[in-house]
This record gives sequence, structure tokens and C-alpha cells, in this order.
Amino acid sequence: MSKNFHKIAIVGVGLIGGSLALALRKQGVADSIVGIESNPASAQWALENGLVDQIADRVPEDAQLVALCVPSDLVSNWVIELADHSAAIFDVGSVKGPIVSAVESQINLPQNFVPCHPISGSEKSGPEAAQVDLFEDCMVVLTPTQNTSTDALNLVAQCWQGLGAKISKLSPQEHDSVLALTSHLPHLLAFAFMQQVESKHLPLTGGGFRDFTRIAGANPELWWRIFQLNKDEVLTALDAFSADLQSLAQNIRDADSESGIAQISAAARKRQ
Amino acid sequence: MSKNFHKIAIVGVGLIGGSLALALRKQGVADSIVGIESNPASAQWALENGLVDQIADRVPEDAQLVALCVPSDLVSNWVIELADHSAAIFDVGSVKGPIVSAVESQINLPQNFVPCHPISGSEKSGPEAAQVDLFEDCMVVLTPTQNTSTDALNLVAQCWQGLGAKISKLSPQEHDSVLALTSHLPHLLAFAFMQQVESKHLPLTGGGFRDFTRIAGANPELWWRIFQLNKDEVLTALDAFSADLQSLAQNIRDADSESGIAQISAAARKRQ
Repeated sequence: MSKNFHKIAIVGVGLIGGSLALALRKQGVADSIVGIESNPASAQWALENGLVDQIADRVPEDAQLVALCVPSDLVSNWVIELADHSAAIFDVGSVKGPIVSAVESQINLPQNFVPCHPISGSEKSGPEAAQVDLFEDCMVVLTPTQNTSTDALNLVAQCWQGLGAKISKLSPQEHDSVLALTSHLPHLLAFAFMQQVESKHLPLTGGGFRDFTRIAGANPELWWRIFQLNKDEVLTALDAFSADLQSLAQNIRDADSESGIAQISAAARKRQ
Repeated sequence: MSKNFHKIAIVGVGLIGGSLALALRKQGVADSIVGIESNPASAQWALENGLVDQIADRVPEDAQLVALCVPSDLVSNWVIELADHSAAIFDVGSVKGPIVSAVESQINLPQNFVPCHPISGSEKSGPEAAQVDLFEDCMVVLTPTQNTSTDALNLVAQCWQGLGAKISKLSPQEHDSVLALTSHLPHLLAFAFMQQVESKHLPLTGGGFRDFTRIAGANPELWWRIFQLNKDEVLTALDAFSADLQSLAQNIRDADSESGIAQISAAARKRQ
């Protein structure tokens, strides 16, 4: 059932691009993988360790699929450059609306572009940190534009499914609104929380602290970019959260057990 | 080197008391374990499954150590009842100052009472959920009062160390201030956060969300009690956190990359 591609190009062979390369090979989804990587050390590492078959300066004409695994602010230039390429093109950025808008501000949205977001990742970076199973059972959100062709959408979906990922489709705007809540806000809270923590506190922490703060160890520049790109949605989610937090705090202050326990119980039920 | 006790009494054989029983037996710290448990089903389960050797109505005269593993608001009555017992007495409540104050409001603080807090736990409850390794490498904070005798303190410390736990000593007030930040505030934030989350969001979450929200699955009544018992410290920690959060949000709003990245980087460094 699973689609086989004779050649897939990966632009940016870091943690995500490298993990994609490892998974494509393991699952037999690609016969040949070409890496395009501006960092010479990463390029060499990826080649020597067999993540890619070849390093090239540009995307080969005969690539059937192109994965743009570069930082979000570099995606639109690549999409524009590859607008007339015969391959289906997808990116893996954490925020979709601004990438689509950046392309749209320059050209009509290309038919071959399928914006994607695999909800996965790691606190690490670079091809050395690549994990072959990063996308297994991972949810990948596809956010086709009004111009995305059915063919391109299907090819990209088949690629992800071939890696064991699950597929969901949303509009770019819906995606950014949901992820502001489920991913960006937790990172914002964890970063803010860690500012209060001093080294003297660390011995007096348990598993709850460790799990709650794990995401605060993520890459600061990457997350600052995400907060900037999705600023409006993130600040909206923060406002809604802050209202609930203040309400809960007021119930604690007032010793209003009925309302307070009701709030906590509703939260606990959802989490369980 | 490790101390052996001929008889230890455990009042309240739930998750914590049951785990303590399992660990005491496995590590050979106690020859005999007596359980005092008001819930007949829990008592029977603990006896039939060999967590305790015996169920009794009251603490035996020849117990050398008594572990009060009952809810925090029930601890002071037991401490008062056992004030003249020859055993060293400890509790395992998550908030120390109010327990000490509740005892002190009735009698002089007993020499045999060593307030303790093992920083461990689980979202589960009941003796069926007991884990033999719950205290291995766990930090246990001992918060002796001005009246606690050196003998009682040493006996209790030896018991915990015999179970593979690490020991730290703080005043009850210091403990409550630190734990408000490292444990109670994260729970408060996770409970408030989950109120925003709807079932439609759940498929669009990853490992970060899962870890960040794990503690929101905890027992609501237990946590409401903790928030009430440590209200002043929790609200103080919340105020300090909120100021940092608002400052970070303002930097995002203003696109002040220098200040924003500095804040996030400091948080990430501490977490890493």
C-alpha cells in the first residue's frame, strides 16, 4: 500500500531533516535521498553517517518530493524558488499562517506546496541528534492552502503515513490557533516559571517538577521565533489562561472550596 | 550500618503508607509492621497482600517508630495522642507549618515528633497503587521543630536512609516557601491550563503537552487541601511568577528580541 519515491530532497539536514532521512530509509519510502545543507559540518556529518546519499547545492530536477526542514523564516524563499518544480513540496514549521502569508505576499500560492507540522521534536538539535522513530505515531497536521493540488496533498500524506505518522488536516489559521494553546502557551509558561527557580531549589524537586519544566530546556532562539510568528494567537491564549488562573487563585484566597474543587476536578478529569 | 527496627506502626495504609510498608520490608528496616487503617477494605487488602503483618486499632506500646500517613488535617490529632509514646513519630504531609501550628495550638510541641515530607508521589491512591521503590533516591525533607529531640531526628533519618532516600533539613516555614514554588505552583498552573483544553485539542498534542500537564491528573481534593494549607506562600509564589510572565508577554508584544531571548535563555540554561 505504501508509496515509494525514487528521489526525495531534504533541505536542511538538522534534527528534523536528519530524522526524516533516517525514517525514510528505514521504512523504504525513498530509494534515494539528497540533502541540501548550508552548514558544511552538518552536511559532511549527514553524508558520512549515511543519512543522505548525496549532498547537492540545489534541489535535483528529478526529485519527486522536497522536504523543507529549514527555520520558518527561510521557508517562503524556498517555496517561491520551487514553485514551478514538478515535485510536491512541504515544510515542517511550527507556525503555518505566517509562512503561507509570506509566500502569498510575493506570488500566487503554488499548487505544489503543502504546509505541514509534525507535532514532535526534541530539546536537541543538529543531525547528530536525529532519531529514526521521531515520526512514529506522531501527529502531522497538513494545512493545505486554497491552491494546493489534490495530487501534492496526497503525495505528502502518503509520505508521512509511510513513516508511521498520523495525519490531520486543518486550515493554517486553525492550526495556529490550536497550537498556540496546546504547545506555545505551555512553553511560555514553563520559560516564565523557570525564571523563579534558583539552584538552591533544585534538590527539593521531584518528578512533577521535572516533567512540568522539561519543555523549558528547549532552544531559546527557535521558541522566540515561534512566539513572534504566532504572537496574536499566543497572547490571546495567554489572556484566556490568565483569566482562569486568576479565578482559581481568587477561590484559593477566598477559601471557596466548592468552586475551587470544581475547577480543579474539571481539569483533572480532562487530563486523566 | 543501617538501623533495624523491631516494630514500626503505619497509620494510614494508602499509597504512601503502603509504599512505605513495602519498602521497609524489602530493605529489612522493620522486623514487624503494624497497620492502623480506618477504611476496612484498605486494611483487609494491606493485610491479605502482606503489606502489613497485623492490623490494629491503636499504635502498639512497643512500636519504635510511627509513620503518620494520613491526610494533613488529621496529623495533629495523632501527634497529640502519641505525644507521650516512647516511639519517634513522623508524618509525610506536603505542607509542614500548618501541621506544626495545629499541634502547637493545643500542646507543647512533643520531643518525639519529626515532621517529614518525602518529595515523591503519584497520581494514584490507595494501597493497591503502592510502589516498593517510591522512596528510592527520593528527597525527604525533615523539618524538626525547636523541641524535636536529636534521638527522634536521628531515628527518623536512619529509617528514610535505610529505604534509599536522600535527606535534607529545613525549618517548616522554609520548606513551605520552597515547595510553594517547586511543587504547589506548577500544580496550580497545570490545573488552570487544563481548563482551556477541550477534547478536540487532544489529538493535536505531543510529548511536551503530555509531560507539562501530567501533574494536572492529580487528586483534586488532596491538592485543594494543599493550596488551602499553604495559601499565603502559594499566592506569593504566584504573584512573583505572574510578574515574570507579564514581563515576557510584554517583550513578545513589543517584539523586543534582546530582552525576550535573554529571559528565555536564562530559563533554558537553568533547566538544562
